[in-house]
Amino acid sequence: MLQRNCDEDSQLGAGSSSSSKVQRVGKACARDALAAALHEACAQAGVSPRQIVRTCAGITGSARSEIAEVMRDLVISIVGGQVEIVGDVDIAFEDSFGTEPGVIVIAGTGSIAYGRNAKGETARVGGWGYPVSDEGSGQWIGAEAVRATLRSQDAGQTTELLQELIEKIGATDFQNFIVRLNANPAVDFATLFPVVLSASEKGNAVATEILRRAGGELAGMAGIVIERLFKKQPVSVATHGGVIASSAVVRGSFGKEITGRCPQSALLDREVDPARGALERARREFKATSA
Amino acid sequence: MLQRNCDEDSQLGAGSSSSSKVQRVGKACARDALAAALHEACAQAGVSPRQIVRTCAGITGSARSEIAEVMRDLVISIVGGQVEIVGDVDIAFEDSFGTEPGVIVIAGTGSIAYGRNAKGETARVGGWGYPVSDEGSGQWIGAEAVRATLRSQDAGQTTELLQELIEKIGATDFQNFIVRLNANPAVDFATLFPVVLSASEKGNAVATEILRRAGGELAGMAGIVIERLFKKQPVSVATHGGVIASSAVVRGSFGKEITGRCPQSALLDREVDPARGALERARREFKATSA
Repeated sequence: MLQRNCDEDSQLGAGSSSSSKVQRVGKACARDALAAALHEACAQAGVSPRQIVRTCAGITGSARSEIAEVMRDLVISIVGGQVEIVGDVDIAFEDSFGTEPGVIVIAGTGSIAYGRNAKGETARVGGWGYPVSDEGSGQWIGAEAVRATLRSQDAGQTTELLQELIEKIGATDFQNFIVRLNANPAVDFATLFPVVLSASEKGNAVATEILRRAGGELAGMAGIVIERLFKKQPVSVATHGGVIASSAVVRGSFGKEITGRCPQSALLDREVDPARGALERARREFKATSA
Repeated sequence: MLQRNCDEDSQLGAGSSSSSKVQRVGKACARDALAAALHEACAQAGVSPRQIVRTCAGITGSARSEIAEVMRDLVISIVGGQVEIVGDVDIAFEDSFGTEPGVIVIAGTGSIAYGRNAKGETARVGGWGYPVSDEGSGQWIGAEAVRATLRSQDAGQTTELLQELIEKIGATDFQNFIVRLNANPAVDFATLFPVVLSASEKGNAVATEILRRAGGELAGMAGIVIERLFKKQPVSVATHGGVIASSAVVRGSFGKEITGRCPQSALLDREVDPARGALERARREFKATSA
């Protein structure tokens, strides 16, 4: 997202492309994807990438210094001016709270809870990647659905949901499904989330129970962050990501659990836009360095 | 394991080698491994593989017909006589119960519960492979330990167990541990089981709780088999595998849970030897076909 100057809220251009996750697509593809998105945004705005004076990029995995360095080099090779690389969580937090205290829970493909208090202390829970973290995420929900439907079948129960999961994975039959589940590379369980969501909306109790548990897991993660940073102090909690945005069951369960565990918390009731957060952050830092 | 004839219990020879799991090592390596083990057993017995008149092979994954076919061809290319390929679970069950009814729970790298009642009806639960099945197995225990210790660290607690898991995986530090957990091919979580076992024995509460839960998961699996095949009828339950054999916590928790869930069940108190089960089965089938 491109913006003209510090005092305007107008968006000049936006671009999107395929994945620029270095860990997954490699450096060359990541650079191409980033460049494509930036050039699209610049074309819309009628500016050259070299005219940009300050960039804030919120990038998954950039808590790892080697990822942050690679991404910084990629961004600098494309745009002019100053460049700041932060985590994707940071820009979502920025849009939610700016420099104020708060807690954000993000649940998309993966999941994470992150917070900052008035003293500037931060804490994070989760987000260490499937299969040993990311509870309540799309990957977690997909894998739990497979697990639950396999168990149901073992127990001799009808499993329409299992058939839908088999089809979604593209397996030819049950045996092939099992082969695929154990194949390398592993199944991307997050692709099963829409199947679970749709089944729940059609009244499937197993699917609904998994979504309800997902909300509970996310509330548990937020609860640990709140306990570490805010104890019994009031705190505002933002949510973001496809799982929370698209499932009323997850939202409902999350809200109920978080209120029960942390009565001092209040849910922030507005959509979070990480791109706007990155803009805000670039603008603030630009003001600070040009002052 | 080799035996001379139908009426003797004497073992003539035994052989072992590396993995003959076709899915993992490929057909050529599987054949070499099988041949090495068979030739070792035959050398001890002073017989040629071609002199063998009946073979029963209990092989992981042979419920899948394409695996069973490949293994049958491999075995036939080495030994003479009749060949029967069955699952690894079948030969463990054979040693536990012969042709009688019963339920067996196996927990090693993976986990499965299997049973057969007086009518000859069978049922299985679990064993569909990690990461969506195999609850209570070595893989499950290892992954749960990583999950729990990551969560403990997120909550700001000391995690000596986490450091031990990091070292066992061979990671250089925490960041490298996270990279390894998300790498392809995936970490073999079963290799972490000894670390969890040892930590529990030294008094680590997190490790002990995971082992206790593993026993509960295994009892739950057995409970489903019992419910399907025996309802309220008395049933004998056998256990087998490294996880159950080496952990008193798993055994204790399993015993307590299974007795609570299924008061009509009685634990079989003897060691199960799948190789002896295969011999029994070969002997019985040989008698049947030569009668």
